[in-house]
Amino acid sequence: MSSNRAVAYKGPGKVEVVDIDYPTFELKDGPGVNPANVGRQLPHAAILKVATTNICGSDQHMVRGRTTAPEGLILGHEITGEVVETGPGVEFIKEGDLCSVPFNISCGRCANCKKGRTEICLNVNPDRPGSAYGYVDMGGWVGGQAEYVLVPYADWNLLRFPDKDQALEKILDLTMLSDIFPTGYHGAVSAGVGPGSSVYIAGAGPVGLAAAVGAQLLGAAVVIVADMVAERLGAAQAFGCETIDVSQEDPREGIARILGTEEVDCGVDAVGFEARGHGQGAGEAPATVLNSLMSITKAGGALGIPGLYVTGDPGGIDDAAKEGSLSLRLGLGWAKSLSFTTGQCPVMRYHRQLMEAILHDKVQIASAVNATSISLDDAPEGYAEFDSGVAKKFVIDPHGVTKLTA
Amino acid sequence: MSSNRAVAYKGPGKVEVVDIDYPTFELKDGPGVNPANVGRQLPHAAILKVATTNICGSDQHMVRGRTTAPEGLILGHEITGEVVETGPGVEFIKEGDLCSVPFNISCGRCANCKKGRTEICLNVNPDRPGSAYGYVDMGGWVGGQAEYVLVPYADWNLLRFPDKDQALEKILDLTMLSDIFPTGYHGAVSAGVGPGSSVYIAGAGPVGLAAAVGAQLLGAAVVIVADMVAERLGAAQAFGCETIDVSQEDPREGIARILGTEEVDCGVDAVGFEARGHGQGAGEAPATVLNSLMSITKAGGALGIPGLYVTGDPGGIDDAAKEGSLSLRLGLGWAKSLSFTTGQCPVMRYHRQLMEAILHDKVQIASAVNATSISLDDAPEGYAEFDSGVAKKFVIDPHGVTKLTA
Amino acid sequence: MSSNRAVAYKGPGKVEVVDIDYPTFELKDGPGVNPANVGRQLPHAAILKVATTNICGSDQHMVRGRTTAPEGLILGHEITGEVVETGPGVEFIKEGDLCSVPFNISCGRCANCKKGRTEICLNVNPDRPGSAYGYVDMGGWVGGQAEYVLVPYADWNLLRFPDKDQALEKILDLTMLSDIFPTGYHGAVSAGVGPGSSVYIAGAGPVGLAAAVGAQLLGAAVVIVADMVAERLGAAQAFGCETIDVSQEDPREGIARILGTEEVDCGVDAVGFEARGHGQGAGEAPATVLNSLMSITKAGGALGIPGLYVTGDPGGIDDAAKEGSLSLRLGLGWAKSLSFTTGQCPVMRYHRQLMEAILHDKVQIASAVNATSISLDDAPEGYAEFDSGVAKKFVIDPHGVTKLTA
Amino acid sequence: MSSNRAVAYKGPGKVEVVDIDYPTFELKDGPGVNPANVGRQLPHAAILKVATTNICGSDQHMVRGRTTAPEGLILGHEITGEVVETGPGVEFIKEGDLCSVPFNISCGRCANCKKGRTEICLNVNPDRPGSAYGYVDMGGWVGGQAEYVLVPYADWNLLRFPDKDQALEKILDLTMLSDIFPTGYHGAVSAGVGPGSSVYIAGAGPVGLAAAVGAQLLGAAVVIVADMVAERLGAAQAFGCETIDVSQEDPREGIARILGTEEVDCGVDAVGFEARGHGQGAGEAPATVLNSLMSITKAGGALGIPGLYVTGDPGGIDDAAKEGSLSLRLGLGWAKSLSFTTGQCPVMRYHRQLMEAILHDKVQIASAVNATSISLDDAPEGYAEFDSGVAKKFVIDPHGVTKLTA
Repeated sequence: MSSNRAVAYKGPGKVEVVDIDYPTFELKDGPGVNPANVGRQLPHAAILKVATTNICGSDQHMVRGRTTAPEGLILGHEITGEVVETGPGVEFIKEGDLCSVPFNISCGRCANCKKGRTEICLNVNPDRPGSAYGYVDMGGWVGGQAEYVLVPYADWNLLRFPDKDQALEKILDLTMLSDIFPTGYHGAVSAGVGPGSSVYIAGAGPVGLAAAVGAQLLGAAVVIVADMVAERLGAAQAFGCETIDVSQEDPREGIARILGTEEVDCGVDAVGFEARGHGQGAGEAPATVLNSLMSITKAGGALGIPGLYVTGDPGGIDDAAKEGSLSLRLGLGWAKSLSFTTGQCPVMRYHRQLMEAILHDKVQIASAVNATSISLDDAPEGYAEFDSGVAKKFVIDPHGVTKLTA
Repeated sequence: MSSNRAVAYKGPGKVEVVDIDYPTFELKDGPGVNPANVGRQLPHAAILKVATTNICGSDQHMVRGRTTAPEGLILGHEITGEVVETGPGVEFIKEGDLCSVPFNISCGRCANCKKGRTEICLNVNPDRPGSAYGYVDMGGWVGGQAEYVLVPYADWNLLRFPDKDQALEKILDLTMLSDIFPTGYHGAVSAGVGPGSSVYIAGAGPVGLAAAVGAQLLGAAVVIVADMVAERLGAAQAFGCETIDVSQEDPREGIARILGTEEVDCGVDAVGFEARGHGQGAGEAPATVLNSLMSITKAGGALGIPGLYVTGDPGGIDDAAKEGSLSLRLGLGWAKSLSFTTGQCPVMRYHRQLMEAILHDKVQIASAVNATSISLDDAPEGYAEFDSGVAKKFVIDPHGVTKLTA
Repeated sequence: MSSNRAVAYKGPGKVEVVDIDYPTFELKDGPGVNPANVGRQLPHAAILKVATTNICGSDQHMVRGRTTAPEGLILGHEITGEVVETGPGVEFIKEGDLCSVPFNISCGRCANCKKGRTEICLNVNPDRPGSAYGYVDMGGWVGGQAEYVLVPYADWNLLRFPDKDQALEKILDLTMLSDIFPTGYHGAVSAGVGPGSSVYIAGAGPVGLAAAVGAQLLGAAVVIVADMVAERLGAAQAFGCETIDVSQEDPREGIARILGTEEVDCGVDAVGFEARGHGQGAGEAPATVLNSLMSITKAGGALGIPGLYVTGDPGGIDDAAKEGSLSLRLGLGWAKSLSFTTGQCPVMRYHRQLMEAILHDKVQIASAVNATSISLDDAPEGYAEFDSGVAKKFVIDPHGVTKLTA
Repeated sequence: MSSNRAVAYKGPGKVEVVDIDYPTFELKDGPGVNPANVGRQLPHAAILKVATTNICGSDQHMVRGRTTAPEGLILGHEITGEVVETGPGVEFIKEGDLCSVPFNISCGRCANCKKGRTEICLNVNPDRPGSAYGYVDMGGWVGGQAEYVLVPYADWNLLRFPDKDQALEKILDLTMLSDIFPTGYHGAVSAGVGPGSSVYIAGAGPVGLAAAVGAQLLGAAVVIVADMVAERLGAAQAFGCETIDVSQEDPREGIARILGTEEVDCGVDAVGFEARGHGQGAGEAPATVLNSLMSITKAGGALGIPGLYVTGDPGGIDDAAKEGSLSLRLGLGWAKSLSFTTGQCPVMRYHRQLMEAILHDKVQIASAVNATSISLDDAPEGYAEFDSGVAKKFVIDPHGVTKLTA
């Protein structure tokens, strides 16, 4: 039995690398594990030696103490790895396969999975539809910022890369398939982006940049990315996006400057509930982004909302925010016949096609989000640096498969 | 030149039948006419002798004084009539044709019309995309609760009934094609209703009942209609719907009673911004319906929102409501991966198919909404009675083509 | 170990009830079993006590000797049954569950299954994508016209009825969920049927009648069914369809008589490769139905083609037919911008919704197709009678769960 | 009244530049004009000074004598021009507007146009749904390979370029919006191309190359173009396509060489009825391309068929071909669950988005198809050269707006 080390949440502002158990084909009790899941048998699972596992903006919500995550929770839901062992119920995935793991855990057997709605699987989280590794209220599946991780329903969940050597060369691109590339792309798809579209993306963090790459892949004519951090906007410009610094310029005016008209075809919210007001020094204002998008999206347009909104936010600015309520200008949205798509991205719907796009050099997602690989021991530092707003996407590499880039 | 009589808004709570000009192929100044539309030439228009013209719930918003509608505005956007004269630019519509008029006025020439988004036509309302007859802020097109009305872009807008005699026999059904039947049906379509669906419709007014008929036509397995007025709920039961009296029963409990589970596949908001809280004696609570729908719709479901939400509501209960803002539990909606479709129904997308369904006896929409025809002179009384919550859909019949049913 | 009896193909024109092995969790060698499937382990399977199992028109192709089916092949792919044992990899399906079995066998783990394309599963048939129970060239899965049958990937494939008692009362309707109801419905869906459509269905056998029921459920305004057998046409009339006897009347003329115009919106081919020419005494003419549908479907329409066409037909009328080639008037189809959808129905895409429609009394599919239950011993007689063109759908009931209706 | 010169078909193999009447707002009699269209009043039309008008492969069908086109027919349906006069019914298009003309003429007022099916407009061609300028059996609308041309229903049909100067700089790209770019793109769309797809395009003529550009814009991972002319294949390679010379290599083998597997996700037929057999010296074989596409497209795939198939071909190789019948391996297609989309491209559905893609430098369609501008007087030479299979797309420039490139 191998040892295992992993990144744990240790209270607001603190993450540490700790020793944990090597995975077994049973879900054991531990921090955040739903009692109904304790003892669950997992003959359908595979154990992966983690190749890469990224730090996600949604991990930061927990680390900042904006959730009820328990201390000791093992973090990490963006996982790529090599299969080292399979349970007796695994038929098609084999030892040695290098695979991407969708961050949504799903069973492949419920009514929602059968419709491709893997983000709301009915069988993996006793609390509600939908689950994820290493996340509060998601059933208690152990996170993957570790040396080894267990993936249930391996035949269903895992996407095998067709050529392991080729995949290792592109590992910093392929690692984005577990979450942010499909998530950003889903934002673009659900905003109705297609050839010739003009697109406005609120937020130039990794998901926003991934949405921009996704919009370009979908044929958008103009992709405009808005943020308040100059370095992030620079990252968007580096791969051909237009940008608006909303600390300096009103979004409608920025759009008019770029397009000659004040509205775009498609709007993407890549910010979520921790949005801040526009303009310098503005405080948290959770409805700002959505209200802004309703203003700057053309009548008949669609809003893709991959940015996370939560049912409860202990750190919310007021009672409404604490229960996940926002003061939205729905009257404006209605007058413009807008539509809105929310929720986790069903990664499985997209990851194979996006893998093909990466393998055939149609997109450079690693470069776009500034993928920066670090060792497992440097993970706490990565969390701190990412929280500062730096324009990097940190990729933890526990076994040194990347040439560490940081 | 014939004379013309019409129903005018005369201030909060007041409507009167007045003499107005017979239509001409030019848009003349008058109450509510946008200055940019004054003098507009309309060679593409047809003049209709109105056969039937219905009173709509959205007319009531104006009559109750909840809008900035000017006194003297001629009301009426649900129009069916016989063509009596056509402009020189009309090629295919002919004198004598009996036609349904979509309440959305559209040009058939702009980018949105070309996509079938006639509800946000760019060329008919100088204020914003989208227009309607006899409605505040919609460009100033004269309403159709009159003996005669002008329909612009007649070749594009009018739906001719294939057999006039047959159509006159079914006129109380066909009159619903101008607005509420497509509008309710659009709510069902955008809620994702299909064969086997369970559907919850908030509101048993005419649009809610039309949504219920639409859901049945789309193959729904169970249609549940909720309201607080017993008579309206009875109307829904009469054509096979399940019902919940939300003044007496919590919606989730009602659904559990009916289905054995607390959630439905599809949710329709047929109420809009004048929603009241649930339970007895509850006051106006504009976000109630949408928050309730987020609670009772299954993860992965869709909400169709044909109920009207406005950009400004002088009579709103608070400052947020006055500008059309609602406190929505978007965090809950996001956690359930819900999607939301808002806006006017693009009538033209549906009216031909629904006409076929009527003509071939697949639906009995007149019966479902309790179509009740009245003379033009009785229109003020019809408004008053409808406002009281009576379970009737009033159809004004200026020339006696129906056997008056009231 | 229980005994097991089943219906076997014994050469052209012959079927017999024979003793076979009780199912085990391994695919054993036998008539028609692909060598690559021999010895396949099936821990994910369930053994069902067959409640009902229907004779299908596509079984007849084999029995008539129009295929290379080997003698001894156990027939039957339309299966409904009660789970009596589950393999160690089955997690959610339980002993005692009464379930419908999609005739397409699929793994729930391949790229096609993940897209809902279960009819072309990549992992169950070594010869090509797609499989079925008891069918030639489909991998060798043992047919279900038996007392007991094994269903692989049971968690994925099986649709459990929510209430067993209720289900047994409607078992003659629910038994149609395994194949013909979804298959006919898929024909209607892929022909673009929706509210208000006019639909022409070629063939009034069980699939054609199921397509007609499906078209009605989808809201079609007029459903026209064409055949050459008066009794079958009578069955269609009995539930509200219009009919054309193509041995007596040209299809375009028949449509004109019914609709007043010679073309319909949607065309469904529920006949397939054993089509006969129109008119009295006409011989086999495999392209007749498709060419006729191209003629009578409106420009811009779609053709749904659930009728089976095969890659090789030893009994074909000429060399082209023997290799599955048809002389199609594609020039006509192209000039009319028609589209064509072929292939097996992916049953899983539809069976849950259609089950809801049955359970809530929205459709009476058993009555429409004249479901007629017979004992297992009477199966050979059922085959013979069905082959004569009688307007019955035979349901084999090995354990007497129906009140036998024949 | 200005003079007018135009390109006329003068019998098999012959085209000449002739003097014709300057357009008027009435459709006058002439070669190929449908009697029912003679004298038709066109107050809704605009007269365009032709900027560019391309020679199309489908013009060649007429010039080769493969149709019943009458001598004297004025050719040309790929038209871009500046509005010099508008009829009294034109409201939004103005003199001076530089516009693209969809080759499909449509009315914007019929049931098909309202659904966006402009390729089968019901009101412009008395013979059948659908029409085009300068084409046999298409109603008799005068072709646009001329100095001036009349465009009916100008408000509906014309796409105005937002900035005339910018448009003139990109005129060789924008001229492709009238037909081949949307047509090729439609082939890709209807073949289901999206991000990550592998695509096989049969034919490297202008439509095939446009399909390849369209597939790239849609995000395809790999685009494979097949032809028998080395120069055309070179053109495809020049913008990043893989190629197969089907005179030298079997398509399945070529795909295996490129992809490592013998099938692609999506197939496009950019050849049509004048297809030749594969291999050196092969003769005309009209079903070859479609049968090949059925073989090399994965189960579950779709075939986009922009290549023209005709209802009658006097020069067909046999009786079947003469009436537009093809011997298709539908049995194979059915076994693979393929779908097929045929017909003219509805240009209006795509041209605005593709214009945006051109104006924002997302695509270089002129370069891809090797746009080569020639004077009106050189048109006959252009026809001859194009017929020889040269890898050029000839753009006639009657007034010298391009710097002539040939």
